[in-house]
Amino acid sequence: MDKLFVIKIGGNIIDDKERLSLFLKEFAAIEEKKILVHGGGKLATRLAEDLGIQQKLLDGRRITDAETLKIVTMVYAGYINKNIIATLQSFDCNSIGLSGADGDSILAHKREHPGLDYGFVGDVDAINADLIYTLLNKNISIVFAPITHDQKGQLLNTNADTIAQEIAKGMSNIFDVELVYAFEKNGVLLNADDDKSVISKINPEYYKELKEKQRIFAGMIPKLDNAFSALKNGVNKVLIGKAENLKLLIQGSSGTAIVND
Amino acid sequence: MDKLFVIKIGGNIIDDKERLSLFLKEFAAIEEKKILVHGGGKLATRLAEDLGIQQKLLDGRRITDAETLKIVTMVYAGYINKNIIATLQSFDCNSIGLSGADGDSILAHKREHPGLDYGFVGDVDAINADLIYTLLNKNISIVFAPITHDQKGQLLNTNADTIAQEIAKGMSNIFDVELVYAFEKNGVLLNADDDKSVISKINPEYYKELKEKQRIFAGMIPKLDNAFSALKNGVNKVLIGKAENLKLLIQGSSGTAIVND
Repeated sequence: MDKLFVIKIGGNIIDDKERLSLFLKEFAAIEEKKILVHGGGKLATRLAEDLGIQQKLLDGRRITDAETLKIVTMVYAGYINKNIIATLQSFDCNSIGLSGADGDSILAHKREHPGLDYGFVGDVDAINADLIYTLLNKNISIVFAPITHDQKGQLLNTNADTIAQEIAKGMSNIFDVELVYAFEKNGVLLNADDDKSVISKINPEYYKELKEKQRIFAGMIPKLDNAFSALKNGVNKVLIGKAENLKLLIQGSSGTAIVND
Repeated sequence: MDKLFVIKIGGNIIDDKERLSLFLKEFAAIEEKKILVHGGGKLATRLAEDLGIQQKLLDGRRITDAETLKIVTMVYAGYINKNIIATLQSFDCNSIGLSGADGDSILAHKREHPGLDYGFVGDVDAINADLIYTLLNKNISIVFAPITHDQKGQLLNTNADTIAQEIAKGMSNIFDVELVYAFEKNGVLLNADDDKSVISKINPEYYKELKEKQRIFAGMIPKLDNAFSALKNGVNKVLIGKAENLKLLIQGSSGTAIVND
C-alpha cells in the first residue's frame, strides 16, 4: 500500500505568515501522498471583533451562532484555505482546498447535547474516500478547512483534530496512513516546562504507566486517547511534534510516535 | 460528445437568498454535465464598509488593493462559494467549489496596463481541462469563485464573465459546450425598456445589422462580442437570459441564443 500522511496544523502557526510559509515548503517537499487539515488561528476572532460581533459563551464554551459561522466560513474556507493553496502552488505542490461540503467530502450532523446548544457545530459521520482517493491518485494534495456540511444545506464548524483523525481512519483501507499532529511543542513531554523532555515513543502499555504515575500533562490526554483510537481503527502510526520540524517529524527523528507495539 | 453547460450567474441574484436557492434548484436539476461560475454580489462591498475599508478608485475604476483582495477571497471563495455548495448538496447535486488556485484550475497573471495599476486583478492564461474533466466525469459539478492565482503564490481577483468564457472555450475540445449568461433581464432586448422585446436568436449577420442600425443597447455589446469570440473558439452556443428561467433558457424556449449560423 502507498503511504499517506494526514497532517494537522494548529491555529498558532496559521497566524504567522513566515512560519506558515516555511511549514508549507516542507509539506510541499513530501514525496508521498499527503493531506493537510488546518485549524483557524486568531484571524476569525479578530475579524469578529472588528465587526463588533461578540463571542458567545455558554457555560464557558464557545458557541457557533449564525454570525460566527459566517465568519469562520469566510476566514477558514476562504482566506486561510485559498492562501495556503496559492502558496503550495508556488512550491510546485499541486493542491486543492476543500470544505467538507465540497464533493460531499465530509458529512456531519449538528451536535446534539442535552441541555447545551453548541450552535452550528458538526460531528463527523462519514468521509468520501472515493473522491479523496481520486484526487490523491492524480497527485493532487488536499487541504481541508475545518468546515463540514449536513447534506441538508447547512455548513457546520468542525474541530480540525477530529477531521484529521476521521480522514486518517477512513483512508486506512486504501493507504498505509500516518497521522501527524504538528503544533508548537516538540512532542509529548514528560515535563511540560521542559521542551527537551520529549517522549520519543508511546505504546499502549507505556501510556497506561504514564497515566497511572500522572507523568503526562492533562491537556495531552484527549489528544493521546484520540491517537490510540485512530490506531485501533486502522491508522498505522500517530506522530506528534513541532510544525517547524515537519521533515524530521515524518522521518521519525523528531517528536513523539504513538504506536500499537 | 457529451453536452456541457457552463453557466455564469451575476451578482444581483447572489444577494437574494430565496432567488438564489430557486436558481440552484434548477441548476441541480440539469441532467447534463454542468459548471457554475458566480460573481460577487454586494456582500463584499458591505463587509468592506463594515470594516471601514474604503473602496479605492483610480480614474473611476475599482482597484483591488491587498485589503480588498482579502475581503473578496473571504466572501467569494469562502462564504458565497461554500453556501452554494451546501445548498446544491441539499438538492442531491454533488458539487465542488473551486478557486482558480485549487488544483491549478485557472492560471492567470496580474493585469499589466500602461499607466494604470489595477492592483491584484488577474487575466486568465490557462485552465486545467484535465482536472475539470476528471471531476465532471465523476458526476461532480464544479462551482467556480472568481478568484484565480499566478502560480507564484498570489491570488487574483478575476472577472466572472471572463472565467466562464475561458472555461467554455477550454472545454470545447472534450464537450459540446453551451455557455449561459444568466442575469436579471429576459435576454438581449431590442428595446432596453421593454423586457418583452427579447431577440430570440442572433447570428453574425444579424448582429452586424443590429449594430449598424444602433438597435442594440451599448452595454450589451461587450457581452455579445465575447459571445461571438467564444463561438469562434469552439463553443457551440451562447445563451443569455433570466436566471429564474434557467430551465427554459437551456431548453432554448426563453432568452437569446447567440449562434454561428
